[in-house]
Order: sequence, then C-alpha cells, then structure tokens
Amino acid sequence: MRKRGHYDRATIDAILDEGILCHVGFVVEGSPVVIPTLYWREGDWVYLHGSVASRMLSSSIDAPICVTVTHLDGLVLTRSAFHHSANYRSVVVFGRPEEITDPAERATRMRTFMEGLFPGRWDELRPVKAKELKATRLLRVRIDEASAKIRSGPPADDPADYTWPTWGGIIPLSIEQGTPQPDEHAANAVHQPPKLLKFRPR
Amino acid sequence: MRKRGHYDRATIDAILDEGILCHVGFVVEGSPVVIPTLYWREGDWVYLHGSVASRMLSSSIDAPICVTVTHLDGLVLTRSAFHHSANYRSVVVFGRPEEITDPAERATRMRTFMEGLFPGRWDELRPVKAKELKATRLLRVRIDEASAKIRSGPPADDPADYTWPTWGGIIPLSIEQGTPQPDEHAANAVHQPPKLLKFRPR
Repeated sequence: MRKRGHYDRATIDAILDEGILCHVGFVVEGSPVVIPTLYWREGDWVYLHGSVASRMLSSSIDAPICVTVTHLDGLVLTRSAFHHSANYRSVVVFGRPEEITDPAERATRMRTFMEGLFPGRWDELRPVKAKELKATRLLRVRIDEASAKIRSGPPADDPADYTWPTWGGIIPLSIEQGTPQPDEHAANAVHQPPKLLKFRPR
Repeated sequence: MRKRGHYDRATIDAILDEGILCHVGFVVEGSPVVIPTLYWREGDWVYLHGSVASRMLSSSIDAPICVTVTHLDGLVLTRSAFHHSANYRSVVVFGRPEEITDPAERATRMRTFMEGLFPGRWDELRPVKAKELKATRLLRVRIDEASAKIRSGPPADDPADYTWPTWGGIIPLSIEQGTPQPDEHAANAVHQPPKLLKFRPR
C-alpha cells in the first residue's frame, strides 16, 4: 500500500509545519467555499488570520470548517494511463475555530508566526499599532479531528506492463524560493533580506 | 489597488491552465470537506477524475462544489508586520458537476488531459482497457460562476514606514520540476522521459 491514511500527530504536524498556504473550506447557505490563505501551527492549534473584513474568517467562527494543506511532490508516470498518479502529502483538519479576542494575545501569536518564517525579523519591524491589531482577526482550530494522506515512492504498474517500452518513473516537483527582490526603498535598510526557513533556495 | 477580483475568462483560464492541482470543496452532512486532486480545463469546463470509489467524486455529482486553484508567487515583506502579504493568483469555480457516463468519451477526455501534460505520451502507453475506463469516474463543472483574485507587485507599506531601516521586498516562490527519476524498469524503454509542459525545470 503506497497510498494510505495516517492519523498520528507526528506525521500530521510534519506536513503542516512544512507549508505556509492552506485551503479553508466553509459553507455559505449550503454551498461550499474554498479560499486559499496562510496558516501556521502552534502546538495543538492551526491559526488563521486576516482582515476583520474577511468573509472567510467571519463565517468560520464556531462554524464547521475544513483546513487542507497539500504538498505536491511529483508526478508518477506509468506504462498505462490508468496507473498514472501523483506523489503528495496532505492533511485535513476538521473543526470549529475559536476567535482570539485579546489584542495582546493576537500580537503574541502573530509574532510567533513571523518568527517561524523569518527568525529575528519581528524585532526589526516598526512596532505594531493598536489599530492594526484591531483590524486583524485571528482564529484557531484545534488539531483534533485530523488525518494525513501520503503517496510516495515509485510507479506501480500492472506487473505485465513493466516490459512495455515506455518510460516510467517520477517527475519531482517542489516549491523553491528565488533570490529576494528588494523594493525601491530597501537600499536604505540596515538589515539584510531575512532568510525564509521554508522551501529550498534555488 | 494591488489586490482585486477579476471575472474575465482570459484571466481565469490562464490561471487554471498553469496548474495541475486544485482543492475541491463539497458538503457532507452540513460540513465542508476539502480534498486535493488533479484537474484540467477544456474550453468552458474543468474536469475532475479519479476512482469510482472516490467519495469526493461521488458526492460531487450534481451537488454544489467549489474548485479552487492557487499559485503562490511570493511572500511580500514590509516594514510593519501588518502589511506583510503574499503574491498569488487564484481562481474559484462554483458549480454542480455532471458525470461523463460514456466510456469512449472518458477515454477521449483522459487523452486530452495526458497530452496537455506530456505531448505524444498517450500513443506510447499500453492501450486503455475497458475495465479501467469502468473503474474511472470523470466529472466536469462548467466555468460559469467563477472569479480570479490576484495580488502582485511590490510591498505596500504605510508611506511613513519606508524609511524604517528594515529590508522590504519580495521573496519569490515557484513550483519547479526536478530531473526525471526512472524506475527500475525504465532502462528497457525505447522512449525518453517525457517533457512536462508545466512548471519551470530546475
């Protein structure tokens, strides 16, 4: 079995911690809506943030949502069309988010998010203003009802097909970070571009 | 306005055609479920396929779903935590999929999918068997109620913050394809590894 479900937290947490983008599903008048947004994990919680004007966030408070994170690791090429596949690792988290209503707590959590991406950057930034914390909504959903799904390894052809004279194997795919591109004001900065802890540099 | 909605088909189609992975949202007993899967576009339709055992597919026939495709193009670093953002292009398609019930039609559409990824590969493959087409479900949803959202370009700080001595700019992110990895049977192949038309080679 190359494709299977996993329910242990170590597997789930490793997949969550490798990513930054999730897709959040919520229900509006009986219909599903799926929106991409950034996320992070702290302990037993997945955090989602954004503007107080975000419909995704306001619709999600104490409502059933699904947070899905997917890493597409490669395409799996077999000798038959039927067995073509993809290598991937994904996690789904089901839950009803709670809102972080204390502004100071929001600031602490946002700091953790930033430091997880760019260690040391938070203290280099212009300090957060009260009105900015007021305009930011922060939700968290407990990693309780969650599972991972993983497909890895080589192609799985029908045994009789391995002698078929067509190439079989994996085409690896990965997210890579390019060279940081300073904006026109960055020349005045005393700080260097921060190092992003996720994704391989090109 | 750097972040805005787009409803023209040229913009929507370009975003759809660049990707291969979507996130499909559907509703099960009032709760949202979001599952990653491959997709492709042909004309006014987005196609989804998989096993007849797939709950995502069987739940989606003539039911409201949301297909979301997201390209994460970079992280946007500003001098304040508040204005940090991401550059991305995303499309959401809402609709009620119809099933392609004719096996021959399924084979034709699967061929188009394969040829869009790997031109010439279909005819190199071991021919599709009737039982394989029977085990494959194919749905399509019309691109009717759809929109795109794009954030691009440099950081947008508060004007007074541009002199703050912290680096600001973009950290580009992209999906790249690595060197094809043959499996242990590929040495016998007369065909070379196919060229994937999506994503930049590393």
